[in-house]
Amino acid sequence: MPPLSFDTSHEWLLRLQDAICTAIARLDGAADFIEDHWERDGGGGGRTRVLAGGAVFEKAGVGVSYVHGGLDPAFADMLPGDGTDFAATGLSLVFHPKSPKVPAVHANIRLVRRGETTWTGGGMDLTPYYPRDEDCIHFHRTCRAACAPHGSAWYARFKQWCDSYFYLPHRREMRGIGGLFFDYVGVPASALPVAIRSRTPLALETAVPLLDAWDFTQDVGRKFLEAYVPIVESRRKEAWTDAEREFQLYRRGRYAEFNLLYDRGTMFGLRTNGRVESILMSMPPLARWTYDYQPPANSPEARLQDYLQPKDWVSLADA
Amino acid sequence: MPPLSFDTSHEWLLRLQDAICTAIARLDGAADFIEDHWERDGGGGGRTRVLAGGAVFEKAGVGVSYVHGGLDPAFADMLPGDGTDFAATGLSLVFHPKSPKVPAVHANIRLVRRGETTWTGGGMDLTPYYPRDEDCIHFHRTCRAACAPHGSAWYARFKQWCDSYFYLPHRREMRGIGGLFFDYVGVPASALPVAIRSRTPLALETAVPLLDAWDFTQDVGRKFLEAYVPIVESRRKEAWTDAEREFQLYRRGRYAEFNLLYDRGTMFGLRTNGRVESILMSMPPLARWTYDYQPPANSPEARLQDYLQPKDWVSLADA
Repeated sequence: MPPLSFDTSHEWLLRLQDAICTAIARLDGAADFIEDHWERDGGGGGRTRVLAGGAVFEKAGVGVSYVHGGLDPAFADMLPGDGTDFAATGLSLVFHPKSPKVPAVHANIRLVRRGETTWTGGGMDLTPYYPRDEDCIHFHRTCRAACAPHGSAWYARFKQWCDSYFYLPHRREMRGIGGLFFDYVGVPASALPVAIRSRTPLALETAVPLLDAWDFTQDVGRKFLEAYVPIVESRRKEAWTDAEREFQLYRRGRYAEFNLLYDRGTMFGLRTNGRVESILMSMPPLARWTYDYQPPANSPEARLQDYLQPKDWVSLADA
Repeated sequence: MPPLSFDTSHEWLLRLQDAICTAIARLDGAADFIEDHWERDGGGGGRTRVLAGGAVFEKAGVGVSYVHGGLDPAFADMLPGDGTDFAATGLSLVFHPKSPKVPAVHANIRLVRRGETTWTGGGMDLTPYYPRDEDCIHFHRTCRAACAPHGSAWYARFKQWCDSYFYLPHRREMRGIGGLFFDYVGVPASALPVAIRSRTPLALETAVPLLDAWDFTQDVGRKFLEAYVPIVESRRKEAWTDAEREFQLYRRGRYAEFNLLYDRGTMFGLRTNGRVESILMSMPPLARWTYDYQPPANSPEARLQDYLQPKDWVSLADA
């Protein structure tokens, strides 16, 4: 078997970007993606595609990047491996639908190398504003199906990691209803620097061969459309009110808070001097902050809180 | 002279909050402040006032807090002094006007103690979206007047500190047209931990007596209305278009980016377990992120960029 090549992986990510954008533009029906090619000063670049002002999607961004060169030493020490030489190729997407009834979604898969150490990471997570149990169950079942061929306990582990990663401590809530999050696959936990180990207790203990790690990561990417599109199709027809739209804008404020206060992908992009507009294409098209907003008791807006705590969606479905 | 008391300083800040809120509610003419009292789990609390949906102000928040207790040790080491015992009392305000022609503004003054070491900090800065030179000059002249009785070189120093503090490196621009920013007044630079010194090269070298430091800081607070109100009065009558409003919402996205990515006050609040709604009352009521927005060449929107780099407003005026 040939060693895993960053060039080949990058090519594969570009094809996945094509497939996702084709499906999403068809689903939207009214707008199409614009494309920007960009280069990074220190080495590499990317292909960013954004669909804005569509019938379904207010803003949908899908970016592929392949960056390499030298890391800022202080930042490098927050990663596994040695030295400052690095390479990273990944696909990242965030969709903000216009209707408050259609959930927002994020997915990312990546292959990263620092010095001689290479690993994969990624995941996907769903952020509904008016959640339905069947959507949450469908999303999580598809996440489980992506994991199943690779490690019997991976879904439970990476689902739990997702619950803890997409958590806003200052709000005491998750960003949405979770999904999958994984990192450092390919590096056994025992080989991770202590600083990383202590904040990622769910990193795999096993030394997964890199080809297997990437195969799993690709499967997560391949499953994205299956996880998300049926939810959009069923919910895009639902009517919505101005008040529901206002609540969506308010909740998007939390999305912005997460991305700017906590998201490691945003930080990685900004710290590696990536293209700002591509990094921040994840930001909501419009967001509201209302001082001390409190939803009426027992309203759908109040019930959203029940969904923003970890829940075992797959077992609930099987019960 | 009695030593400086946190209780007395807190009382003074509450009276300043009264004076500012009275003037701002009168200026608005249509809405008034609501008031919330809150307590902090670890000790202390605050009085938050927010005016929303006014004729002039879309959101105006003025908070006073007095918090004390024990600091998280990792966070404590980012401050001067020793140990984890701390106290802080301050006033913080952010106003987001409805009209894109009226500048947003922020001001903050504070008295902080860690262990046996006490200092003051604060400042004010203006964020116009359609700037006028005379507004920038007026704001900076008032800032200079606040400094003049205290230290002949203080305006130039704290103006420069403001320019560098309210800077978004990923955007390569300042948040607005600056004003004043100062910190650790009362602690000579030689007594600051190396980590603080290296990132605050403009901290005063002199050991300003604490009473003088607080006297200066109070003067900055006293001058706030004089610095800002005349600008509102002259610009509130100007007409504005939907396109100008959209530009304001877009620029407010940068305001949100600064607050969540870089602002130390926000971080201090979140790290000391402050009341989230009071810390984040600074967030814009509504903000937009438009992928890769580029203003038309030579438009007023493009010319804003010229204002977002350091400029010697006072000397320009005197020339």
